[in-house]
Order: sequence, then structure tokens, then C-alpha cells
Amino acid sequence: MTILYFIDIVGTMVFAISGALAGRDKKLDFFGIAAVGLITAIGGGTMRDILLGSTPVGWMKDLIYLAMIGSGILISLLFGKAVLKLRRTFFMFDTVGIAVFTVLGLQKALTIGVHPVIAIMMGMVSAVFGGVIRDIVCNEIPLIFRKEIYALTCLCGGILYVVLQRMGLEQGWNILTTVLFIASFRILAVKFKWQLPDIS
Amino acid sequence: MTILYFIDIVGTMVFAISGALAGRDKKLDFFGIAAVGLITAIGGGTMRDILLGSTPVGWMKDLIYLAMIGSGILISLLFGKAVLKLRRTFFMFDTVGIAVFTVLGLQKALTIGVHPVIAIMMGMVSAVFGGVIRDIVCNEIPLIFRKEIYALTCLCGGILYVVLQRMGLEQGWNILTTVLFIASFRILAVKFKWQLPDIS
Amino acid sequence: MTILYFIDIVGTMVFAISGALAGRDKKLDFFGIAAVGLITAIGGGTMRDILLGSTPVGWMKDLIYLAMIGSGILISLLFGKAVLKLRRTFFMFDTVGIAVFTVLGLQKALTIGVHPVIAIMMGMVSAVFGGVIRDIVCNEIPLIFRKEIYALTCLCGGILYVVLQRMGLEQGWNILTTVLFIASFRILAVKFKWQLPDIS
Repeated sequence: MTILYFIDIVGTMVFAISGALAGRDKKLDFFGIAAVGLITAIGGGTMRDILLGSTPVGWMKDLIYLAMIGSGILISLLFGKAVLKLRRTFFMFDTVGIAVFTVLGLQKALTIGVHPVIAIMMGMVSAVFGGVIRDIVCNEIPLIFRKEIYALTCLCGGILYVVLQRMGLEQGWNILTTVLFIASFRILAVKFKWQLPDIS
Repeated sequence: MTILYFIDIVGTMVFAISGALAGRDKKLDFFGIAAVGLITAIGGGTMRDILLGSTPVGWMKDLIYLAMIGSGILISLLFGKAVLKLRRTFFMFDTVGIAVFTVLGLQKALTIGVHPVIAIMMGMVSAVFGGVIRDIVCNEIPLIFRKEIYALTCLCGGILYVVLQRMGLEQGWNILTTVLFIASFRILAVKFKWQLPDIS
Repeated sequence: MTILYFIDIVGTMVFAISGALAGRDKKLDFFGIAAVGLITAIGGGTMRDILLGSTPVGWMKDLIYLAMIGSGILISLLFGKAVLKLRRTFFMFDTVGIAVFTVLGLQKALTIGVHPVIAIMMGMVSAVFGGVIRDIVCNEIPLIFRKEIYALTCLCGGILYVVLQRMGLEQGWNILTTVLFIASFRILAVKFKWQLPDIS
């Protein structure tokens, strides 16, 4: 699981950078930028842990998360504009991060013993809730992709994971398949501008 | 308690419908509508359970709640305008639902062992918090009634329940009395446009 | 610890008054004013307890907190304008209250067994989160001081406490030193209008 852990902490840093950059865009002061970066990075996992009752919440148990978030905020402050030029690289990390967050969140929920349907929802919450809070706090509409596809992708990935698990696929292969599925789906969705139909 | 359980799950669906319709009014996309419906339906009970530390939160333990919420969202999407014509019917379900949510929330808090004063507050939170979040998310002012009367009604109903319990009233009769009290009070408040005095 | 407990409950009342007055300024009705007063007073401790998993959250276990909050709201409603003339007195209570909230929050987190770095964050959250929610709910910018200095002060105070504890300082003296440090730092920051540099 070392590779999952690695992606998890790098993904956390990428989330912190995306939050801190959003705070910069809003011309917040230092404390505001750090707060938005922190909230974006920990929001999803924190919400999942609070709902499941897994407390103290996850990031409190391993200081590496705070260290990565602090680094992410520092990077955004020091190299703000340069980081934006790496948007494509970040998009890849962000995408793989989301996929990994979904799988890890789902696994945590299953461990606690909730029904798989709830676990799938908790996987999605882990992946998307940080970004939702970031957008609420910064009052902005996500630019590069529509959020519902983003959330739906995590939902479908979670369903795939549970189905494959039921079919007896070995956990390592299941994680790999699910992460690849979520990441590719999201890349395709952004590339071809997939959208859900407008119903209202 | 079968009748309470029945009102509880139907009330949950009615809350989901009210949330989903509010999301439609705001011209949200499919995911937004579903999210507002879900939040409205589970918001109150989730807040109560988190504050009391009763986790995993209630709706995770019985999938019937998610099923009813899903149905409510579907109904809102398929029959949106037709549902609005049934507003009076929904108002009745909503009113009885609020009364039942108050009593069930209060009972749950008492079971956990908090002081009755806290339990009365948790009953109110169970009943009104979902609607509060819905209004915050949708940025709208409730139309048919003023919220403070709504919350005050649940507070008075909770006090009545605790007093009657102390006086030795049998639980079944106590629930019936309290639910009728809250529901009638609310209907009268809406009908005669009762308002709290403006102090500020 | 009687003096700490006394400052804690008086500080809670001062927070409730500051919230209720903010609600009055926004011309909220009675229920709104009471809600903002309550949220401001309990917001920080509630967030800390939820994140740490110390539930039912703190103010549910000792009714004196609700009683003080109720008194604070009543005072704001009855003597609204007169209270404003005592702003200097309140500022002192508020400042000492924040310092005490920081230390008590930090101690509670340490008791639960999280890493000191996390405990320092939880001390800050205890002290500042109520005010943050009040400002979000009331949509206003704090007047007399910039928030980041406020939060940074609590952070530095928390670090001081942990360092002195490690150096073997007796707990009573440590609390006294930390509270005096936080309170003086805040008074100086407001008096001389200290600000963090603007980075964005």
C-alpha cells in the first residue's frame, strides 16, 4: 500500500495548492490563504470521518498530512504564478489524487462496517467535499470542469470497486482498476466536455 | 412504534421533495437538485447525531432513508410542476413530519443521557436544521411561514413532551399529544400568520 | 482551576453578547439574535469537540453554559445600546476569554492524546471559530481588529504553552503565563494596529 499512501499525501498537497491559489485569486491575506488551502485539503476526509464517527479525524493522526499541506501553501505563496503554468501537471496529480481519495474513503467506511451503498457515498464525499467547501468559501464557479461529472465519476468508481470486490477480485488489482477507471473517466470528461443533461 | 417509523420515513421523503423543488427553482443541474434534496432530508438528524456523538449518523444505519430520499428526488424531477399543485397535501405531511422528527430527536437525545433541556434543543435541531441548510444553500427566504415560529413550535412541543413525561403520562399518549400539539400549533401559526415581535 | 472555570463561563457570556449584538445590528428577529448569540458562544468548542470526537459536545454536559448564554442574549436584548458603551470592559473580558479558551481547548486536546501540534491548532479553533461563524452568518468584516492577528496570537500562545510544559513549568504557572501572553499580545495588536503583511 506504499504507493497508495504516497499518492494520498501528494494528492493532499495538490489539494492544498489548489485551495491556496483560489484564496490568492480572491486576494485574501496570508491567514485566509492558509485557511482555504487547509480546508480544501482536509475538508473531504474530515466530513467523512465526522459522519462515520472515526475521530479524532484522520489528518490528526499522522502529521505528514499537515506537513504536506503547509508545503503546498508555501509553494503557492512563493511560486504563485509559476505554479499556474504547471496546471496540466497539477491536473494529472489532482485527478489521480481524487481517484485515490475515493478508494481510500470507501475502504475506510467499509472497515467501519457501514453498508456498501453508504461506503460508496463516503468515498465520493472524501474526494469532492474539500473542493465544494473551497468553492463555497471563495464564492466561485469551478472553471475547467462541471462538478457533477466530477462527483458522478467518483460515484461510478465506487460502485465498480464494490462490484469487483464482490466478484472476488484481489484488493490490489481492484484498487488499480478503480483508480484507473476514475482517472480516465475524469480526463475524458474534461477533454470532451461531457455534461449531465440539464433537467430543471 | 410502527406508525412513528412510517411517518418518519414519509416525512424524510417529503423533506427531500421540498429540497429538490427548491433546487429546481434555483435552476440547479441534476446533481445539485439531488444534493439539496439529500441535505434537506438528512440535515437535521445528521447535525443532532454529530453533536450527540451518535455515529455513524442515523440515516447510514437503515437504507430505507436513502431509498425514500431517492424516490423523493425522482418524484420532484419527473412531476415537478404537478407536485406543486399538491402543496396543501405536502404541507400536511411536512407539518406532521416536523412534529414526529421533533419527538424522535428528543427521545434519541434522552436515550443518550443528556439533560432534558439539551434533549429539547436536539429535538428542535432534528426538525428545523435541514430546512435551514436548504435555505442557506438556495439563498432564499421561506415563503409560507416565518421560521422563528416554526422553530419555537418545536421547542414548545419538546417542553410539553418532557413535562408530560415527568407527570407520568404513558409514552404512546405522550407522543400522540406532542405531535398533535406541534402540528396544530404550526397550522394555526401559518393560517393566522402569527409572528414573534420584532425587537431589534 | 476555579478561576479558569469562572473566566470560561464569563467568556462564554461575553461571546454570546457579542454574537447577539451582531445579530441586532443585522436587524434579525428575536430567534435570529438568539441563534447568532448561541452559535458565537459555542461554535469554537463545538467544532473542536466534533473534530476530536469528544461527544456529546462540551456545552451539553454542564447547563451553566446555556444559562450564561441565555443571560448574555437577554442582556443584549434589554440593554443593547447601553452595552455598547461598555465596549472597553467587554473587550477586556473578550480578550481574557479568548486566552482562556485557547488554553482550555489545548489542554482538552492533549488529554485526548493527539499530537501537541494538533492540540495547538485545536486551542486556536476553540478560541476563534465562534467568531468566524458569527462573521460568516452576519456577513460582516470585523471592525476593531484584523482576524489573522487574532488567530495568530492564539497559535503563538499555544506554542508557548507546549514549550513551557516541555521545559517542566508547573501547570498553574504555565496557564497564567500563556493567558497573560495571549491577552497582552492581543491588546498590543489592537492598540498599535499590527497587521500581517499582505502577500497576494
